[in-house]
Amino acid sequence: MQIGIVGLGRMGANIARRLMRGGQTCVVYDHAPEATQAVVADGATGATDLGDLVKKLAAPRSVWLMLPAGKITEDSLNDLYEILEAGDTIIDGGNSFYKDDIVHAAKLKEKGIHFVDVGTSGGVWGLERGYCMMIGGEKDVVQRHDPILSVLAPGRGDIPATPNREGRDTRVENGYMHVGPVGAGHFVKMVHNGIEYGLMQAYAEGFDILKHKSSTDLPEAQRYDLDIADVAEVWRRGSVVSSWLLDLTAGALAGNSTLDKYSAEVADSGEGRWTIEAALEEAVPAQVLSAALYARFRSREENSFADRMLSAMRFGFGGHKEFSPGLK
Amino acid sequence: MQIGIVGLGRMGANIARRLMRGGQTCVVYDHAPEATQAVVADGATGATDLGDLVKKLAAPRSVWLMLPAGKITEDSLNDLYEILEAGDTIIDGGNSFYKDDIVHAAKLKEKGIHFVDVGTSGGVWGLERGYCMMIGGEKDVVQRHDPILSVLAPGRGDIPATPNREGRDTRVENGYMHVGPVGAGHFVKMVHNGIEYGLMQAYAEGFDILKHKSSTDLPEAQRYDLDIADVAEVWRRGSVVSSWLLDLTAGALAGNSTLDKYSAEVADSGEGRWTIEAALEEAVPAQVLSAALYARFRSREENSFADRMLSAMRFGFGGHKEFSPGLK
Amino acid sequence: MQIGIVGLGRMGANIARRLMRGGQTCVVYDHAPEATQAVVADGATGATDLGDLVKKLAAPRSVWLMLPAGKITEDSLNDLYEILEAGDTIIDGGNSFYKDDIVHAAKLKEKGIHFVDVGTSGGVWGLERGYCMMIGGEKDVVQRHDPILSVLAPGRGDIPATPNREGRDTRVENGYMHVGPVGAGHFVKMVHNGIEYGLMQAYAEGFDILKHKSSTDLPEAQRYDLDIADVAEVWRRGSVVSSWLLDLTAGALAGNSTLDKYSAEVADSGEGRWTIEAALEEAVPAQVLSAALYARFRSREENSFADRMLSAMRFGFGGHKEFSPGLK
Amino acid sequence: MQIGIVGLGRMGANIARRLMRGGQTCVVYDHAPEATQAVVADGATGATDLGDLVKKLAAPRSVWLMLPAGKITEDSLNDLYEILEAGDTIIDGGNSFYKDDIVHAAKLKEKGIHFVDVGTSGGVWGLERGYCMMIGGEKDVVQRHDPILSVLAPGRGDIPATPNREGRDTRVENGYMHVGPVGAGHFVKMVHNGIEYGLMQAYAEGFDILKHKSSTDLPEAQRYDLDIADVAEVWRRGSVVSSWLLDLTAGALAGNSTLDKYSAEVADSGEGRWTIEAALEEAVPAQVLSAALYARFRSREENSFADRMLSAMRFGFGGHKEFSPGLK
Repeated sequence: MQIGIVGLGRMGANIARRLMRGGQTCVVYDHAPEATQAVVADGATGATDLGDLVKKLAAPRSVWLMLPAGKITEDSLNDLYEILEAGDTIIDGGNSFYKDDIVHAAKLKEKGIHFVDVGTSGGVWGLERGYCMMIGGEKDVVQRHDPILSVLAPGRGDIPATPNREGRDTRVENGYMHVGPVGAGHFVKMVHNGIEYGLMQAYAEGFDILKHKSSTDLPEAQRYDLDIADVAEVWRRGSVVSSWLLDLTAGALAGNSTLDKYSAEVADSGEGRWTIEAALEEAVPAQVLSAALYARFRSREENSFADRMLSAMRFGFGGHKEFSPGLK
Repeated sequence: MQIGIVGLGRMGANIARRLMRGGQTCVVYDHAPEATQAVVADGATGATDLGDLVKKLAAPRSVWLMLPAGKITEDSLNDLYEILEAGDTIIDGGNSFYKDDIVHAAKLKEKGIHFVDVGTSGGVWGLERGYCMMIGGEKDVVQRHDPILSVLAPGRGDIPATPNREGRDTRVENGYMHVGPVGAGHFVKMVHNGIEYGLMQAYAEGFDILKHKSSTDLPEAQRYDLDIADVAEVWRRGSVVSSWLLDLTAGALAGNSTLDKYSAEVADSGEGRWTIEAALEEAVPAQVLSAALYARFRSREENSFADRMLSAMRFGFGGHKEFSPGLK
Repeated sequence: MQIGIVGLGRMGANIARRLMRGGQTCVVYDHAPEATQAVVADGATGATDLGDLVKKLAAPRSVWLMLPAGKITEDSLNDLYEILEAGDTIIDGGNSFYKDDIVHAAKLKEKGIHFVDVGTSGGVWGLERGYCMMIGGEKDVVQRHDPILSVLAPGRGDIPATPNREGRDTRVENGYMHVGPVGAGHFVKMVHNGIEYGLMQAYAEGFDILKHKSSTDLPEAQRYDLDIADVAEVWRRGSVVSSWLLDLTAGALAGNSTLDKYSAEVADSGEGRWTIEAALEEAVPAQVLSAALYARFRSREENSFADRMLSAMRFGFGGHKEFSPGLK
Repeated sequence: MQIGIVGLGRMGANIARRLMRGGQTCVVYDHAPEATQAVVADGATGATDLGDLVKKLAAPRSVWLMLPAGKITEDSLNDLYEILEAGDTIIDGGNSFYKDDIVHAAKLKEKGIHFVDVGTSGGVWGLERGYCMMIGGEKDVVQRHDPILSVLAPGRGDIPATPNREGRDTRVENGYMHVGPVGAGHFVKMVHNGIEYGLMQAYAEGFDILKHKSSTDLPEAQRYDLDIADVAEVWRRGSVVSSWLLDLTAGALAGNSTLDKYSAEVADSGEGRWTIEAALEEAVPAQVLSAALYARFRSREENSFADRMLSAMRFGFGGHKEFSPGLK
């Protein structure tokens, strides 16, 4: 099957490569010509702009967007709205907000253009391992793209089957799922990332407790000097906390046990925040997912107003000397 | 009534002064002679050491300790154990751990020495406003010290009476309460401080949201430039969030609206942590009180191991470039 | 000054009464005729519908809406848009979302109608104590309504002045504040309520720890049987946790020390949720305010899906027998 | 190697079986004779009491305790203290508190008896998959038990090796690790379980958000009716949230998609609480791990005092009618 791919960053370029390895045909475009050239070198047809890309695709066309959510995706959708035709399909494989999908799909529908949202997990590992995909859209449109989706998906691999799944949609065991109408794909991916934040923070706090156990703030008799890298490794085997994130953690610690080459300022994408907004809309108590998101906010702050206010209150009530160094 | 006071810091010295203003007699001692002299200048009898203090008191003696919890209080208790006599009383007015009280009382009882624990709230304001006291100990021993306690307490003042309290212990409306046996006073004071952390953090977060509303990270149309000092002031009048802590916050902001003269590294005393330990023992979900305590821990950390681990995982999975500045 | 008041629930009716006591003239309307009559009995002019209310006001008219946020406020604004004239003013004194204010004001401006948003705190106590008001809108329009606002406000009362406020807007010390342009009033009120949730939860958790200290789940030697009502009362005097919310708590406990007449299902209004949304937009770590909101969500749930999932995992991994009673 | 095993519950019996399958010799005892018989049927030598077990072991003896932490483990240690001899070893494979280990080891040392603490993870899966073990104790004593430990451990299996681990202790890649002196094994296992709680709660909240997305409390246009069981399954393939806990969750959902056969009252063992105590001692902000633990506390409560207090405050301030059903 032929597909156009727009956006050839870490994710988009590898998606094109995996598709071509799986026998599919890709017309690719990135606003950076060298990004386009790199994928052309691996067998894709390059395009110089969106118009050129559309011209190089046979109707009914399918265009996969793999762009940052927000303005860039928005602009490309608007441009494609002008130049695509009835019967064509746009697949948004990025991290767009699911409520935006619904607006986008409605607008494209005016011209008879289909819209599919695909939440895509796989990171830099997707090229080799495949991408886990959560898909929203019309049933037959999703079905028509199965040649693409089945190639991108991880497949069963050597992951043991879950019992009691007889008679269920077999795409799911292959790592891709048509989860519902437009927006549903990105909704499920959004929650997926919200969970990811929670899992990451759980490990981070636990290892922090292990790390601080050797702190000289503790009485000597209460200290253990633990090899954190080995602890991460041993938990990968037979322990209930084993996971892919732990594999990655063990890898990072084996190479740099103090983790001092890593920043302590942790970015968050929209999805973590939108997950909390969904929890608010649904009145779901998301204590852990929120706490994990806030830990990221906090990691990027220094000398916060909130903390200064606590100091000010302590001084006001108890006369505690809590002044900033310059003013002591 | 005559009382010995050991420890003449911000709290102890003012306790002595309030007692003397209320017609009581104080023999005072601090390991720093100038601290002793300052209170002697206000009318107390000074002592040069614990032995001297005990000698200057008539039996049955009462000694009020106003010392940092832990080793210093412990050492003084041990010394007094040696030199006090049956029928004497030690009052621990500091912030000792309530389980330690029980051990202390049992030891003193061997010699017939009584023990009373008094959780004392009032900060630098106590001299003028009086001290709110939560008292643990034997009924008659507590009763015997009423001349002291009633003078230290704030009294009814102009605080409106609570309806439906007819027939209840009138000491409570005067701001002091015999809450239970040994340890109970410090237990209630401990929870009091745990609550205090929660209240402080609630204000701090709310004002932080107000403050960030003018951040240039927000689109201009979404910004308000709010006068935080005025907001704190207006909430003091008729609003349900009015409180003493808010009064203090309004005062701090009126003098320094950016709070930049205050440290953003917030200390915590043992009581906040012990409150959470009590919640753990009792299986009480203390989400807010814990979150408030952790915010203080976090305020004193930079470049935390937990945050670096999040960066390491992000790099490992998604190839996100999250390196510390020196190693980019 | 003459003003129309629409919505005569607990808040609206008392606002009318306080205005009339302060010498202002009110034309009032509620969709329930008996609510209208009750305020007419206290001196207001009644109206039978919005049209009638508008007819009974002299231009330039001012109409204060005190209605539930959302559809009801929305509908009334639309109706008034049709029948008011250029130069008139609508004051939304309810708990509307501040972003909606901006939309409302823009629409009304098309016809030259002014809009003022007033966040109003005071509860059932406002009639006697006055209302703390946070006001958004155009400077001169707010100024023109000072006769109304100054009467509704609590005034200085006997609350001690905050030092260092010389030269600042004196309205603030009287309990009302022009905080900024349209929406700013409700924004500040929204955060006010977010803080309120945090404060309430801090007290609730602390008292819960006190309560559980008598639980028979604890070893007998670790129990204290505390008089919670007295603890609340004693903290009102000289303690740093004293506040209006504590006054109310002490009152509730004095009348019903087990609180068994109260529901344990706690409602939340939009403002708590919007406060968290604002924190998300601003990347402010609002751990305590979120935890407090989630505690309310959780209070209204039984047998939650999340908890069942924990049981399912425990069974799956450890064979722990965690089945619902019917299926054990 | 010969070993005595005391406590033949889900974990202990399978540990004996795995050892025997691996060519080791077991003398086993459980206070329930039928539990002993079941393991004898699989090839073990049975003992009728601790004395009998000790008699059937050749010196230097090794006894593995697999008992509930606390009194039962304590009593068995005391009994074994009396009947074991210098040079013998007790291995505590249960979930004891690591500070207790230090006390136990010191006492046993008086008689020359060695002590090893082993945190053992593996659940009902350990028999087939092996047990992940975190071991504390003297180096040579741990080394001497390698025949036992290497058989119990999972081994490398088909889990991909972590890069950069050349030259490190190979036991770790086989799933067991000598983490440090006495107590260190249980300390690491404790944190492991703390992390487990956090991971579980992250999944539980995320799935709860997915589940509530079909709630009729949402406007119809905002609902998706998601197949939660399929979502869990698809995330097992190529997604960054894949983990063993997710495998178990997918299994539970495939068999019972509503999870209505599971209890919503979630137990917690000591380790979750001790992890938070360690965080408190070390001043580590453990927001997520605490929130996860509190969610379990909360799952077991109905009609909590804290929630009633919130209702009481709401009534007191705003006149909101929040009464328990019987008293409305």
